[in-house]
Amino acid sequence: MYAVIMAGGSGTRLWPRSRQNRPKQFQALYSDRTLLQETVRRIEPLVRREDIYVIANRSHEPIVKEQLPWLPPENWIGEPVAKDTAPAVGIAATVIHSKDPNAIILVTPADHIITKEMLFRRLLKVAEKVASEGPNVVTIGIRPTCPETGYGYIQMSDAHRTIDDIDVHEVISFKEKPDLRTAEEYVSSWHYVWNSGMFIWSAQTILDLYKAHAPDIYRLMMRFKNAIGTPDEQTVLEEVYEAFPKISVDYAILEHADNIHVIPAAIGWSDLGSWSALHEIMDADENGNTVVGSHVGIDTHNCLIHSRDRLIATIGLDNMIIVDGGDVILVLPNGRSQDIKALLEELKKQGKEQYL
Amino acid sequence: MYAVIMAGGSGTRLWPRSRQNRPKQFQALYSDRTLLQETVRRIEPLVRREDIYVIANRSHEPIVKEQLPWLPPENWIGEPVAKDTAPAVGIAATVIHSKDPNAIILVTPADHIITKEMLFRRLLKVAEKVASEGPNVVTIGIRPTCPETGYGYIQMSDAHRTIDDIDVHEVISFKEKPDLRTAEEYVSSWHYVWNSGMFIWSAQTILDLYKAHAPDIYRLMMRFKNAIGTPDEQTVLEEVYEAFPKISVDYAILEHADNIHVIPAAIGWSDLGSWSALHEIMDADENGNTVVGSHVGIDTHNCLIHSRDRLIATIGLDNMIIVDGGDVILVLPNGRSQDIKALLEELKKQGKEQYL
Repeated sequence: MYAVIMAGGSGTRLWPRSRQNRPKQFQALYSDRTLLQETVRRIEPLVRREDIYVIANRSHEPIVKEQLPWLPPENWIGEPVAKDTAPAVGIAATVIHSKDPNAIILVTPADHIITKEMLFRRLLKVAEKVASEGPNVVTIGIRPTCPETGYGYIQMSDAHRTIDDIDVHEVISFKEKPDLRTAEEYVSSWHYVWNSGMFIWSAQTILDLYKAHAPDIYRLMMRFKNAIGTPDEQTVLEEVYEAFPKISVDYAILEHADNIHVIPAAIGWSDLGSWSALHEIMDADENGNTVVGSHVGIDTHNCLIHSRDRLIATIGLDNMIIVDGGDVILVLPNGRSQDIKALLEELKKQGKEQYL
Repeated sequence: MYAVIMAGGSGTRLWPRSRQNRPKQFQALYSDRTLLQETVRRIEPLVRREDIYVIANRSHEPIVKEQLPWLPPENWIGEPVAKDTAPAVGIAATVIHSKDPNAIILVTPADHIITKEMLFRRLLKVAEKVASEGPNVVTIGIRPTCPETGYGYIQMSDAHRTIDDIDVHEVISFKEKPDLRTAEEYVSSWHYVWNSGMFIWSAQTILDLYKAHAPDIYRLMMRFKNAIGTPDEQTVLEEVYEAFPKISVDYAILEHADNIHVIPAAIGWSDLGSWSALHEIMDADENGNTVVGSHVGIDTHNCLIHSRDRLIATIGLDNMIIVDGGDVILVLPNGRSQDIKALLEELKKQGKEQYL
């Protein structure tokens, strides 16, 4: 199996650790490894290093090479400009297809956490098997634990088969981010799972689906394919990225495709979309606090304390989030993460761009 | 007028800015100057620099000389060991008396803030006048603004005279830190003021009072007086400090003395005894926040934000205190300052002495 690690996100909701020049996926948030390094480590038992590809903004090339020094140069795809996931998946599939037309490809974000890794790898093996059988797309769906309105949902059919004790359902439809009431219906029906952004399909299937459902993107992919290995490769990459529409792979391809399968998974997954999400996924101490770094607390409960080389000392706090971002300290109640956006706007307004 | 600045405090309640190796009085807390430097600046219009004496723990000599580089070496008194205020006041008076037997001396802590400085200096001039008239002790009493149980109180007689529009009352008695009910009675009676720890008296009066009420200390003072200017001066200072009892000037002298006067003062005084006290004395912005350093806030009200070179970012906070102590960040609700002591104990228990 091949892997394409999508490392192009900005991760502003994890500010001030996630920063413009070093977003979330390049930060160590819950272990000694960065999220990118964790993503690699998680799949390494299944994918050889020379078959791992990383795609991210071109400006982050030095960070990727610093964090994955073994990555072959041809496995790094530097996007000249961010155009959402459809162009990224298409270009990466093109690169891999030109190397191995029979490749099965796992597409995965670089900035998620999965705590049940053995189970995750068992699912991937089953997904690989299904993807090998034909023009199938296999998605990993996450069993919802709450009526989350920030994720897309996948509606599953009852029809399914079981491979190695893993259920593989047929997909009825993809649903965009729902309102709260709809999300509650989804969760209670047990026929909906969260769209994790992880897909397993063959390189040939990807190219065929782009040809059928996104012919504009496909033509640009083929133009780039002809340039691979020539002196024009980077110039052509820039040109096709200039021309790509900004669109997600969900909208461009998956909502129109047949033969989509989903493996509903309870794998301790989180997209780490906020400090609260990190707080939830991490193991808490006897006071309900989740601590990274050095902390001393008096009467401190249910807090996320996220430090680096400094001590964070707290008294009389409940359900608070404190993050040491080096040159910035952020303090807020758990549940107010959505206001970080307004805070970043305020910083821009004040001309304090160095903190973004 | 001479001045003795008492800079021997430990200031643990303002941790983590106040630290064992650089306590509160040597820190800049509300301006570019340290509290010691502010104390000097405040009295400089009344006292010549060569008449200012500083007494503090011997280990802090480099800090004092760094912050007051002009201080004549003989005006620095390094205490070999902390023995509370009675020995400090006695030794400083001995040094000054040996230079000028007619000296009038202001004794003042190094770590208080006074916002109404013009009025303060007017009071001092009147106090100097009263102290010059005979064996009088003049104290500066602070008009209470709340039933504070952390201060000593001074009970005033109605009998008073008025000099240059300033009332000077006779003192009936000194009261130790009261319980809350007693403090409430004190405040409502209008005959009680807080003991600020500032006294104005002649060097001769001090020596006479020690001789009468603390003969043990007086004998040691005289022993030291004979050694001043000799090669034995430091050795004798060590010996007398070894022998000194640990006792405050209030207990040892003032509670037994006659001819004590008090000038009730509304001079914007605070002993900066806690972060809350600093919050109260500083000017708040339109959101009720008092800010030192760099801060950006969303929905943040009535907070004390005390930073240095880092940005502190806050969302959805009310009545909180956040202090950047360099290698430590402290976060607590306003009103929980008293728990800092427990936090320092916890640090000791964990062997993290470097943060004390």
